[in-house]
Amino acid sequence: MENPFDDVYFMKKALQEAETAFEKGEIPVGALIVIDNRVIARAHNLTELLVDVTAHAEMQAITAASHFLGGKYLHNCTLYVTLEPCQMCAGALYWSQISKIVYGARDEERGCTTLNTRLHPKTVVIGGVLAEESSQLLKRFFIEKRNLN
Amino acid sequence: MENPFDDVYFMKKALQEAETAFEKGEIPVGALIVIDNRVIARAHNLTELLVDVTAHAEMQAITAASHFLGGKYLHNCTLYVTLEPCQMCAGALYWSQISKIVYGARDEERGCTTLNTRLHPKTVVIGGVLAEESSQLLKRFFIEKRNLN
Repeated sequence: MENPFDDVYFMKKALQEAETAFEKGEIPVGALIVIDNRVIARAHNLTELLVDVTAHAEMQAITAASHFLGGKYLHNCTLYVTLEPCQMCAGALYWSQISKIVYGARDEERGCTTLNTRLHPKTVVIGGVLAEESSQLLKRFFIEKRNLN
Repeated sequence: MENPFDDVYFMKKALQEAETAFEKGEIPVGALIVIDNRVIARAHNLTELLVDVTAHAEMQAITAASHFLGGKYLHNCTLYVTLEPCQMCAGALYWSQISKIVYGARDEERGCTTLNTRLHPKTVVIGGVLAEESSQLLKRFFIEKRNLN
């Protein structure tokens, strides 16, 4: 039987979070943390609402997952995020020792791959899951924003 | 007349924060954010208490300073931190566009210099202010911790 809980399944949920961010006028990035096929944290970018550059989707998801687990290490957890993590988020993921990171669109300019941010040696990274959908949502956000200004 | 509000003056206050962390059993790192010689944020590492890898002193100070200023950019602000920022904190400082970072002890292994984390081009960095005091506090913490276990 096919496993319904694959990376695309969870990335779709992360994309729903990104859409919620979009509706709030936030740069649309969404994130989810999953353990044993169970979602233990979901978040979207809130930097504008919270007036706080640290309020990226991934950062909130890390905090929420740690609270849920009662421990600060995210072993056996997978982060799903619609955009490749930045230095800050990748740095937080390094400390969390998270097992797996799955991201959607690449961030060529400010993503952790380009900027060579160190991740934990045990962390597996998979990029490009629903990349086109994630990227299109971001493009639509910036086009609408430009037209409003 | 000598300016009493120099880097050593503020770093001493950051060291007081680090000592508070020490007393709580947290890795002793303290941080301060200053604008026009006025302290607008003070924080110390709380990763154990909050069970959250993102609760570094700098991250909390950035959030607090942004709340105080009502804006997410820390222009004209200086961060004083007793230990060189890690990738996560340097990544957050990049987003904040902070004007100046003054740190105490170098972190040869996990600091942003070694790991080559990108800072904002407008950010000036000064290292080594009260480095010995900051470093000694950290060393004392790890020695005491080892003896307790």
